[in-house]
Amino acid sequence: MTGFDASPRLPLAAPGATPVRVMTIAGSDSGGGAGIQADMRTFAMLGLHACVAVTAVTVQNSTGVTGFQEIDPGIVAAQMRSVTTDIGVAAAKTGMLASDPIITAIADAAVDLGIGRDGATPLVVDPVCASMHGDPLLAADALGALKDRLFPLATVVTPNLDEVRLLTGIDVVDPATQRQAAVALHALGPRWSLVKGGHLRGSDLSPDLLYDGSEFVEFPGARIDTPHDHGAGDTLAAAITGALGHGYSVPDAVAFAKAWVTRGLAAAYPLGAGHGPVNPLWRLREHGPG
Amino acid sequence: MTGFDASPRLPLAAPGATPVRVMTIAGSDSGGGAGIQADMRTFAMLGLHACVAVTAVTVQNSTGVTGFQEIDPGIVAAQMRSVTTDIGVAAAKTGMLASDPIITAIADAAVDLGIGRDGATPLVVDPVCASMHGDPLLAADALGALKDRLFPLATVVTPNLDEVRLLTGIDVVDPATQRQAAVALHALGPRWSLVKGGHLRGSDLSPDLLYDGSEFVEFPGARIDTPHDHGAGDTLAAAITGALGHGYSVPDAVAFAKAWVTRGLAAAYPLGAGHGPVNPLWRLREHGPG
Repeated sequence: MTGFDASPRLPLAAPGATPVRVMTIAGSDSGGGAGIQADMRTFAMLGLHACVAVTAVTVQNSTGVTGFQEIDPGIVAAQMRSVTTDIGVAAAKTGMLASDPIITAIADAAVDLGIGRDGATPLVVDPVCASMHGDPLLAADALGALKDRLFPLATVVTPNLDEVRLLTGIDVVDPATQRQAAVALHALGPRWSLVKGGHLRGSDLSPDLLYDGSEFVEFPGARIDTPHDHGAGDTLAAAITGALGHGYSVPDAVAFAKAWVTRGLAAAYPLGAGHGPVNPLWRLREHGPG
Repeated sequence: MTGFDASPRLPLAAPGATPVRVMTIAGSDSGGGAGIQADMRTFAMLGLHACVAVTAVTVQNSTGVTGFQEIDPGIVAAQMRSVTTDIGVAAAKTGMLASDPIITAIADAAVDLGIGRDGATPLVVDPVCASMHGDPLLAADALGALKDRLFPLATVVTPNLDEVRLLTGIDVVDPATQRQAAVALHALGPRWSLVKGGHLRGSDLSPDLLYDGSEFVEFPGARIDTPHDHGAGDTLAAAITGALGHGYSVPDAVAFAKAWVTRGLAAAYPLGAGHGPVNPLWRLREHGPG
């Protein structure tokens, strides 16, 4: 595993050639910092073609989420089917899923379309439960569907520490509890579990821990001290998805994504009265066929 | 007016500095080639921060649109208000608006928020009526609201020739009818009307004509012969919006945007069984603080 990479890149398609296609299944953040907006910024900056199945439309700015409209579960599944059967996707991710019926529709469609751990297409499940401000983005009664239907399909799950607590009951406060959490998450069915260290505020480092049921892989990384980390979780999961779409192994994809987010945090900018976003636009300043 | 610019750019924000913010008010294209996806790709590749008010979620791939869900007009307006009052936007655009109630909610919010010709924030109105495959994206009874409520707010309107016919009854087939159409569109209230020549299939060139009630400005441009022009109209309007956000005049913004779309068409790629998209990802191959 590489650690920090000063200029993480994925190979670019030649002009006129079709890029690697990926799909995000997530909610829209009107403020542009998280959700499908974060995913699409990262996918674009990685040179990928992004397909999107919108699950919900949030009313959101830098200070929080004040409302959202869910998309009909049938329309969510239809978006997945429409792009998968025509355009094709090499990897997919999920973010905000809002409700039990939406999760059920996504899981059914994923099985049908060969997305997920027993299918041909890797699936990254970022189990978004709340915004960074604590606004709920998943119905309380939907946690069961998330665990029972989606986790067993996941190639890798990428909860933050609040989500780890909701999903496993484990409060990660040190390396020992982080390891327990990785084991407990893996027991829910994903091929790999990733327990991020980003919220271990006591530490100078931000180690992430990856586990596949037998092997622990640790990813040390410099902590970037910024209040502008809106969309960091989405961006990490999107970058993992992009790397899996390029055929990376899960550990290599996580190493790549961690370097990508670190660069984005180092370039993060203020926005509005609250938290600014991770910034992948640094990529425009650097030359590169990759 | 410059014509074709081999490498069109907008100035980039320094790392850590907040980029110019813009807003798109439009529909989601699950296939990733048009709608907010085209807008966000172009905004990202221009180094802008993109805010989004989603109006509708379409089920779409390279062969067409098979369904969509409209967003509640109150949620559309709330997205506009949330981002405008906190994050602030230097320019805005509209794309697919779906229905009369959504257009009315957007026009009311725009007036209230100072977006549009008598406000501080320039507004580009791309009057999307149908997909490139002819699938309707605007209710038949919504054309009146588009003309009566939104056109008078527009800094510039950017219809394609099918939309010109629906809006003015004029069939643009040559420079004389293009000029008539520009005058008829301007009479509907926008500060500038732009009549694109992109669908004048008989011509080797693709001249666009801009009119402000007194002066005609003509933009010659090389035609790029490609079947992969999905999202070309959205991309043009988004690039105009980005340039207006940077303080360009309308003629300069159109010149810039035309060069941007031309580069994107030259790099367009096949996708699925139908039409591939305009490709702004060429920008990743070129170095640049702009």
